[in-house]
Amino acid sequence: MMKIGYQGVPGSYSETALQEYKHAHKLQDVTAIGYSSFKALIDEIEDGHLDLIVIPVENSTTGLIARTVDLLRYRSLVAIDENYQSIQHYLWGLEKSEINTITEAYSHPEALSQCDTFFANHPHITAKAYEDTAKSAQFIAEEGSIHQAALASKRAGELYGLKQLAASVQTESMNTTRFYIMAPNEKVTLKGDILSLYIETKHESGALAKLLQVFTLFDCNMESLNARPIAGKPFTYGFFMEVDVSKSTVPFELLWQTLEQVSEHLQVLGRFDSALTNKKG
Amino acid sequence: MMKIGYQGVPGSYSETALQEYKHAHKLQDVTAIGYSSFKALIDEIEDGHLDLIVIPVENSTTGLIARTVDLLRYRSLVAIDENYQSIQHYLWGLEKSEINTITEAYSHPEALSQCDTFFANHPHITAKAYEDTAKSAQFIAEEGSIHQAALASKRAGELYGLKQLAASVQTESMNTTRFYIMAPNEKVTLKGDILSLYIETKHESGALAKLLQVFTLFDCNMESLNARPIAGKPFTYGFFMEVDVSKSTVPFELLWQTLEQVSEHLQVLGRFDSALTNKKG
Repeated sequence: MMKIGYQGVPGSYSETALQEYKHAHKLQDVTAIGYSSFKALIDEIEDGHLDLIVIPVENSTTGLIARTVDLLRYRSLVAIDENYQSIQHYLWGLEKSEINTITEAYSHPEALSQCDTFFANHPHITAKAYEDTAKSAQFIAEEGSIHQAALASKRAGELYGLKQLAASVQTESMNTTRFYIMAPNEKVTLKGDILSLYIETKHESGALAKLLQVFTLFDCNMESLNARPIAGKPFTYGFFMEVDVSKSTVPFELLWQTLEQVSEHLQVLGRFDSALTNKKG
Repeated sequence: MMKIGYQGVPGSYSETALQEYKHAHKLQDVTAIGYSSFKALIDEIEDGHLDLIVIPVENSTTGLIARTVDLLRYRSLVAIDENYQSIQHYLWGLEKSEINTITEAYSHPEALSQCDTFFANHPHITAKAYEDTAKSAQFIAEEGSIHQAALASKRAGELYGLKQLAASVQTESMNTTRFYIMAPNEKVTLKGDILSLYIETKHESGALAKLLQVFTLFDCNMESLNARPIAGKPFTYGFFMEVDVSKSTVPFELLWQTLEQVSEHLQVLGRFDSALTNKKG
């Protein structure tokens, strides 16, 4: 039996990404296990208790999800695939609720802030912070009143048997979260167009420029690059980057050895074929 | 009279940065004006109602403060200086309070999460989310009970006449926020070692590599680089970057014209002498 971990509860966007991955790869006999924190999730796969994890790394509106990506540093797991989830928030209530009976809408603070226009247009509804989107739907189903609703995904509302009071209430119509599907290092052979890396350069002037010249030299196209603070060394940075290696004719081993020359810490965070092309606006 | 704007209330880290800037430059006759949102703050200086603003752009633990930096895009203001504030949270209560009488500690959610070890060690105190750190001190001073405390800066606690119940309770001992001091474009002449830029490259393969080659060519050392999503174009990016131009002998005008060749949108976000060197760990 295969065990796949995610952060949250059934109906969360992470769990939906997990289910899509399972169906796309026709995986049989999978147990999906929800964790209350990203750290617990990553610890569990490192400790050998999980085969895969599904973890959000980027949002089309808010960019790199630093609080999760930072946790992937100095770990021994790699992304073997990616999944995109369109983030569409629905307002969910009890059977007897109508939008006019609702005075409080519960959800994760980030989801609430993604729906600021909805709240501006419905001043009788107060936004109430809750642990996460799917859990707020669970809460309404179990203990809610006709005055309380949850902002959560379509799947979460349906899963907890709630009534749809409003659809796609987020302010940005195109709002997508990207997930990595990650496995323990030692269990996979890496292949695919997109190479995801975390690199700390040597502490010398021009080190980042040198690093980037390696990719240019070997025809690896830089897709994105984000500086992240190194813990305990204020205002020094490591770099998360994704490069497209499909045009490169250089053996991977040579690329790797050359990168090592200009790096203090060099870590493959993933390699997979891009699902990105279809998602670009 | 000079008007300088910031987000928050007196005693906030932003307002403290403002006061330090004022003292360092011996500015007389300054009115400091607090705003409830970063957007309102930036709108006010663009509309000509403020001479300067003070705005946080980076934290040593959490990195780029994307929600503020993103607001600086496509605006006509530039950073002319920077300021670093050590973020040390104190627990503040009423005169009759002791740490054992406290059952609730109020602060901004980010500040609360920076003190997770303190809450783990004091399980009788519940973390309560509040609008911001200094406002939570104001709230305790005005309406608090001996069971309620605020997590806020030393200055905020003193300003609102509170009693110090615990000092430096944040988990990370070195926790620093960096601020830009910004002025309207047309009012300043730019000079200094650090050049802060926001650039959207042309939508072609290798555009980021070309851009970075310009800096290498002209001996501008890349200090940091962050990809941020472009609104309405999911998974396309603009880049915030800071380069050290002190070693470059190329006229600024030539650097600029060359950057224009590889950019779709090119914006100077600031130029100033670095206060960074002293802050590195």
